[in-house]
Amino acid sequence: MNGKGPEDREDDLGFAVIDTSRGERTGCPEVVYCEGKTAEHTEAIMARMREKGIPVLGTRVSPDLAERLAGRFPGAEYDGLARTFSIGGRGGSGEGLVAVAAAGTSDLPAAREALQTARFYGSRAELYCDIGVAGIHRLFRRLPEIRKARVIIAAAGMEGALAGVIAGLVTVPVIALPTSVGYGASFGGLSALLGMLTSCAPGISVVNIDNGFGAGYQANLINRLK
Amino acid sequence: MNGKGPEDREDDLGFAVIDTSRGERTGCPEVVYCEGKTAEHTEAIMARMREKGIPVLGTRVSPDLAERLAGRFPGAEYDGLARTFSIGGRGGSGEGLVAVAAAGTSDLPAAREALQTARFYGSRAELYCDIGVAGIHRLFRRLPEIRKARVIIAAAGMEGALAGVIAGLVTVPVIALPTSVGYGASFGGLSALLGMLTSCAPGISVVNIDNGFGAGYQANLINRLK
Amino acid sequence: MNGKGPEDREDDLGFAVIDTSRGERTGCPEVVYCEGKTAEHTEAIMARMREKGIPVLGTRVSPDLAERLAGRFPGAEYDGLARTFSIGGRGGSGEGLVAVAAAGTSDLPAAREALQTARFYGSRAELYCDIGVAGIHRLFRRLPEIRKARVIIAAAGMEGALAGVIAGLVTVPVIALPTSVGYGASFGGLSALLGMLTSCAPGISVVNIDNGFGAGYQANLINRLK
Amino acid sequence: MNGKGPEDREDDLGFAVIDTSRGERTGCPEVVYCEGKTAEHTEAIMARMREKGIPVLGTRVSPDLAERLAGRFPGAEYDGLARTFSIGGRGGSGEGLVAVAAAGTSDLPAAREALQTARFYGSRAELYCDIGVAGIHRLFRRLPEIRKARVIIAAAGMEGALAGVIAGLVTVPVIALPTSVGYGASFGGLSALLGMLTSCAPGISVVNIDNGFGAGYQANLINRLK
Amino acid sequence: MNGKGPEDREDDLGFAVIDTSRGERTGCPEVVYCEGKTAEHTEAIMARMREKGIPVLGTRVSPDLAERLAGRFPGAEYDGLARTFSIGGRGGSGEGLVAVAAAGTSDLPAAREALQTARFYGSRAELYCDIGVAGIHRLFRRLPEIRKARVIIAAAGMEGALAGVIAGLVTVPVIALPTSVGYGASFGGLSALLGMLTSCAPGISVVNIDNGFGAGYQANLINRLK
Amino acid sequence: MNGKGPEDREDDLGFAVIDTSRGERTGCPEVVYCEGKTAEHTEAIMARMREKGIPVLGTRVSPDLAERLAGRFPGAEYDGLARTFSIGGRGGSGEGLVAVAAAGTSDLPAAREALQTARFYGSRAELYCDIGVAGIHRLFRRLPEIRKARVIIAAAGMEGALAGVIAGLVTVPVIALPTSVGYGASFGGLSALLGMLTSCAPGISVVNIDNGFGAGYQANLINRLK
Amino acid sequence: MNGKGPEDREDDLGFAVIDTSRGERTGCPEVVYCEGKTAEHTEAIMARMREKGIPVLGTRVSPDLAERLAGRFPGAEYDGLARTFSIGGRGGSGEGLVAVAAAGTSDLPAAREALQTARFYGSRAELYCDIGVAGIHRLFRRLPEIRKARVIIAAAGMEGALAGVIAGLVTVPVIALPTSVGYGASFGGLSALLGMLTSCAPGISVVNIDNGFGAGYQANLINRLK
Amino acid sequence: MNGKGPEDREDDLGFAVIDTSRGERTGCPEVVYCEGKTAEHTEAIMARMREKGIPVLGTRVSPDLAERLAGRFPGAEYDGLARTFSIGGRGGSGEGLVAVAAAGTSDLPAAREALQTARFYGSRAELYCDIGVAGIHRLFRRLPEIRKARVIIAAAGMEGALAGVIAGLVTVPVIALPTSVGYGASFGGLSALLGMLTSCAPGISVVNIDNGFGAGYQANLINRLK
Repeated sequence: MNGKGPEDREDDLGFAVIDTSRGERTGCPEVVYCEGKTAEHTEAIMARMREKGIPVLGTRVSPDLAERLAGRFPGAEYDGLARTFSIGGRGGSGEGLVAVAAAGTSDLPAAREALQTARFYGSRAELYCDIGVAGIHRLFRRLPEIRKARVIIAAAGMEGALAGVIAGLVTVPVIALPTSVGYGASFGGLSALLGMLTSCAPGISVVNIDNGFGAGYQANLINRLK
Repeated sequence: MNGKGPEDREDDLGFAVIDTSRGERTGCPEVVYCEGKTAEHTEAIMARMREKGIPVLGTRVSPDLAERLAGRFPGAEYDGLARTFSIGGRGGSGEGLVAVAAAGTSDLPAAREALQTARFYGSRAELYCDIGVAGIHRLFRRLPEIRKARVIIAAAGMEGALAGVIAGLVTVPVIALPTSVGYGASFGGLSALLGMLTSCAPGISVVNIDNGFGAGYQANLINRLK
Repeated sequence: MNGKGPEDREDDLGFAVIDTSRGERTGCPEVVYCEGKTAEHTEAIMARMREKGIPVLGTRVSPDLAERLAGRFPGAEYDGLARTFSIGGRGGSGEGLVAVAAAGTSDLPAAREALQTARFYGSRAELYCDIGVAGIHRLFRRLPEIRKARVIIAAAGMEGALAGVIAGLVTVPVIALPTSVGYGASFGGLSALLGMLTSCAPGISVVNIDNGFGAGYQANLINRLK
Repeated sequence: MNGKGPEDREDDLGFAVIDTSRGERTGCPEVVYCEGKTAEHTEAIMARMREKGIPVLGTRVSPDLAERLAGRFPGAEYDGLARTFSIGGRGGSGEGLVAVAAAGTSDLPAAREALQTARFYGSRAELYCDIGVAGIHRLFRRLPEIRKARVIIAAAGMEGALAGVIAGLVTVPVIALPTSVGYGASFGGLSALLGMLTSCAPGISVVNIDNGFGAGYQANLINRLK
Repeated sequence: MNGKGPEDREDDLGFAVIDTSRGERTGCPEVVYCEGKTAEHTEAIMARMREKGIPVLGTRVSPDLAERLAGRFPGAEYDGLARTFSIGGRGGSGEGLVAVAAAGTSDLPAAREALQTARFYGSRAELYCDIGVAGIHRLFRRLPEIRKARVIIAAAGMEGALAGVIAGLVTVPVIALPTSVGYGASFGGLSALLGMLTSCAPGISVVNIDNGFGAGYQANLINRLK
Repeated sequence: MNGKGPEDREDDLGFAVIDTSRGERTGCPEVVYCEGKTAEHTEAIMARMREKGIPVLGTRVSPDLAERLAGRFPGAEYDGLARTFSIGGRGGSGEGLVAVAAAGTSDLPAAREALQTARFYGSRAELYCDIGVAGIHRLFRRLPEIRKARVIIAAAGMEGALAGVIAGLVTVPVIALPTSVGYGASFGGLSALLGMLTSCAPGISVVNIDNGFGAGYQANLINRLK
Repeated sequence: MNGKGPEDREDDLGFAVIDTSRGERTGCPEVVYCEGKTAEHTEAIMARMREKGIPVLGTRVSPDLAERLAGRFPGAEYDGLARTFSIGGRGGSGEGLVAVAAAGTSDLPAAREALQTARFYGSRAELYCDIGVAGIHRLFRRLPEIRKARVIIAAAGMEGALAGVIAGLVTVPVIALPTSVGYGASFGGLSALLGMLTSCAPGISVVNIDNGFGAGYQANLINRLK
Repeated sequence: MNGKGPEDREDDLGFAVIDTSRGERTGCPEVVYCEGKTAEHTEAIMARMREKGIPVLGTRVSPDLAERLAGRFPGAEYDGLARTFSIGGRGGSGEGLVAVAAAGTSDLPAAREALQTARFYGSRAELYCDIGVAGIHRLFRRLPEIRKARVIIAAAGMEGALAGVIAGLVTVPVIALPTSVGYGASFGGLSALLGMLTSCAPGISVVNIDNGFGAGYQANLINRLK
């Protein structure tokens, strides 16, 4: 663990240590989680990464922060719903399809974060929304397209039933993405999380509540397997 | 509240007070919840009710208790899976249909308790099993029959998604019956309960975990409305 | 599931897919849950529904949103306590009565949402407030009226005892509506929810915390049964 | 704290330290909680207390242990339902009345433990059972007697509503005793506990789930105030 | 329950039903819980009570509301820390002493609410603060005074140990008042609540988190027993 | 959904409905979860599947049940630690490697269930045990082998840290399998589940506590992608 | 991490990998946690450790297992209350004192496990029992001795107040050991755990519920610091 | 307990009682927890402590409060990230090293509070940040330095794995400091707390979520042992 190969190059900014060799090592450069970081720190981290030629994906980027960053990094892309800010990723030109299914419009922030993450790391990805199980005929209409995917992300809040219903209808892995949508006994996404974990359909694995980044990252890892 | 009309006749056995006028008052005679009662007490309570001509429904009746009671009350019916023991109920001869849908075979104890309760209080009731959402084509095959019901009970453990999927496909009230089936993050039925409470499909109301009696009782109350 | 009958007509606005045939299919047109939607989206969805002649019920409508919508949809009705906004519903002209009982004044937002929902879908509905169990003589005074209902909604926070007490006094179904009223060990409505689920009185089923819409919808489904 | 007055006399058995001066100090001799103690230890502790002339109250005493102890301490009293074993207490000859109200027969173990504890420490105490709120006319019939008490213990499982209903009808303190009776969302007494803590009726304070001893002890402390 | 004796006089304001005979019935006039009520409603309720000559205690009264109410009701008293507003109560002239012990300064809001409530209903009451168990010598210094009380309220957040320690040192009932003081694993007062419920010292009963009113009310009920 | 293609063939045994076309449809024949089924039912289900030529995987098979089944189905394989019973699966002859990493010996039941499941559905799979993070040099020694896998299952109880540590060291998807190993604050696997869901390392998705079958099934789905 | 120094010697038994160099590396040889291991495996692991001359500490050793092991390893010591089995440890001959304070006799299993662990690893350790805060004079009597310790372990169930009270009276680190003693709202040690974590006295850190081994190990690490 | 030695000198400000002899008694003067105190009270408390010559450590000090206090107490030090304000502490000149390891930059507030606390009470202390287990090579690079410490604080949110990994690599006590960093299933630090409590590595004890003060205080107590 003490050599100086790609495994352990890093860059210390004082307030943060950037893992500059992560892209070479894993094929997936490090992400910048922006919530709780100052704008100055965020900008400095991204600037250093760009100096090294590393593509940048920022998540949980507020509109204000995005505006500031856009001034500094022309050509970057901001998705206000997903709250992602990306510079120089692979842009979704890959071969296999990642299908992102969202139960309702309120699930779009998490679903789009997953979508943008999968694209940034190179996967082709498409979003299918408003296909919750309460009106299951909407899901069936989209099913032929969704079945073309190599991996499916199912984003849903409240009871989270979408993941199980889809997994019962397809033959590829489903990444379940619980969202904090709902009120009362939703308990901030807990009901969706428990529902997805205990689904009786096999072929599901689950990420943290609202963790669109994690779902998109895992979907891309699976999708790029040859 | 102090008169001697049907509202308040009762019968004190020392260890229990039987509400002998409940059948007249509500149309639904009192049930005997047998878990935690001694066999002697249970038998005495049922005997007193029979003396008064009251139909008897016992729930959570173990096989041993059932055998003892069967010796005392010939003509009674015992459903070993539902653990119900009934003497002289109305037997399901009513008009409207109560459909009891069970996601899997492990949900049958709760589902059959609901079925037998609805029948005891007079509803016609039918059971449809193994129609969980993981293989949703099984549910669709039974749908035409289920849609004939005036009220539907949906019994499911794990993620409890069956209630929401059915409610999205029918136009009558659905009583969701969460069961304690499952392990790990099922937490004894909690995941099913939360999933059913937070379902995005309207037209669902929920009873306690494994409370087949409550589901069947409520379904009968609804079904007998004219 | 692939025909073009009333079952599957819908309307894609890009940011939302409206189920325009739901009213024909279920007798209950779709509701617009407004929390978390932009004002523009909400207005556009409602406008499209009105174009198709569909009655509109918006829930969780803030005063600001209501003011904007009122400018666009003259003749609409806004209930500021219930936070409901309705255009062209059936208006409570139906036959059977839905009684909405509220334990205290703080339970009124959820209770009135239930009331307005039941009326929108066609039920006659009345509200009885401040009849919590801490002063049970108030409940007894209203009982003769409440007993005329075909279905009763019992809204209560804190310990939620109202549902069980009413269910023990009536012969029709009770829909229990837990509210997030209270502090400390109320845990945002959890204590009321658990109390209602575990009530020893039969004839109760429960909806999600603060889900007045769900309670009113379910009550209307039951009430319209013939 | 270092003198040798009644405050700190004690007796070390090696496996336990008996607080032999507690009776003098507080008017209430120490109790022996028997669950988790060996029969030998329990017997030795009780024997030492009797040598010193201290009245003995054992709680959570199993039938087997009671049989063994009865052989050693003739004249003792065992209440199999309460699981209390007492030698030489004051026996309930006091002046004010402690009323113990139990919602159902399943609440009797906790309720009777409270009853026997209050009597052991000197209070007159009576039990009123099967008066749960699901059939509230039963409670009203007993109300005139219950109102004669100086302090009331309300024992209930499931939703625990009995405490709040009684507190709304009386003018003396109510000690709420949640029991672990119930299943599913009762969560071992949690729903009753939360319901009692959040009751909207003032004049209630709560003890631990199934802590009949604590309820009886507190009721006696209150009752003996002059 | 249908007579017109003191038991059931009440006064309907449209938005609230005032129980105007409660003072006669229970000796304790109704309290006005002000959180969540509009200023107009609160003022109207209090005005109607004053018209009938009923003493008024408002709890959870914000400074803004207090200022408004003070203009309308001269001679009222506001305690900004306790957030209580009272007009014409008995003012703590009673005989027995209620001692209110607060672990730290952060527990003062709940503790003072208890203090003012006990005084309003007639008890003499004194506050002893900053006597938490982390520096137990402070508690011992106050002990001689505290021991003069007929009933003790112990207010504490975090681990809530104060109640158990005091109960082990006195011979009168202790009302434990958990507060939401603390962070992290305090979980909004849950740790204090559980600690107080499970205390191994007998003679404790517990009210809801931050329910200073409930603690003071119960203490007064106990204190006024003769 | 109404044709008779491979999508919907099934077989009704009365007590269960077997989805006999699932293998054709998804490439993964249905599993028989044996906990809670009677031995007669289990045997009948397996027999019917064998008649149709379907490979059988039973999970949660007790030693007693295994002995009975072994008599009926010669040539079957039973793994007593994994509690799996298989007849005629593909036997792990596939190309890509599934690596199953287990933190400690107590995690072996879940880990081996995952291993046997992956093999049954065709994946080559290897187990690496006793590599928990408390002695991280053990993990590093196995790392070169583990890195050869296309997908890794990380099984751990207690704090569940193994999944995050591995995911930080590899470039393939990690399926985290929390186990119920531990005591106290492990809360039956909850601490491991939460730890795995919130891991700061990307590339992890999680299955239910002790759900070795789910982990192995998902790993095989991923591994067979081309 | 790839050398062959003391850091990474280990011994693979097939079913377990023994870290035989741990004693050299850390000064504390590995412990054998016996719950959930077969007797054969346990015996084989211990035998291999003894062959290498490593002292053995087994925890959670049942009486049956102890008897079997005693036959194989003469001279070993078994503490039936602590459930520890040790061969060749250092035996408590160290210099500084570890004081183990136990609130009640039911806390002795965890407390004695801590005691035996501290002694095994070399610390001098003494046990002080039955000094819970409900009778705080007992604690004060032992205080002069307890204050001689370099580190104190405070074992308590129920509200866990002992840790905070002691920490307020001493000037050395306190290791809080919550135990699962109690019922109802103790929730298996959760109330003690939360109480100890949130104690307002500084100088406390906490180990897992019933983790006497962890408390004793940590106390010894602290005690041996020079 | 009634003398006037250093044990019980204190100073009553009316709104707070300062324990002015605590420094002499324990070697650690009292801390001022500033959250929830008014600026006036805080300033008055600190002023009184300075008059007595007591060093002052304020925690949870907001920037606004710090500015005000800085005007009053020239020469004080404010750490805006740690939110600590100190006047006249020992300043980290001690002998043994306390190493504070922080998993990520978001853990710095808690980690720096621990750092400043340890220094205030006299320990030499150093911070090592961004060494979370997701990129474990960063931790290994810092390990040689960290191993020089006499006691280590490990601050981490999310899964909290850092504590267990470090404890497996060192031979000194580790104080685990869970932080509330994270979202979704982090549940405000609960997942980190549970993970640290259940770590399979011995030599860890845990403080409350975000309790940097408690971690630093305990580390200093351990570090100053001779």
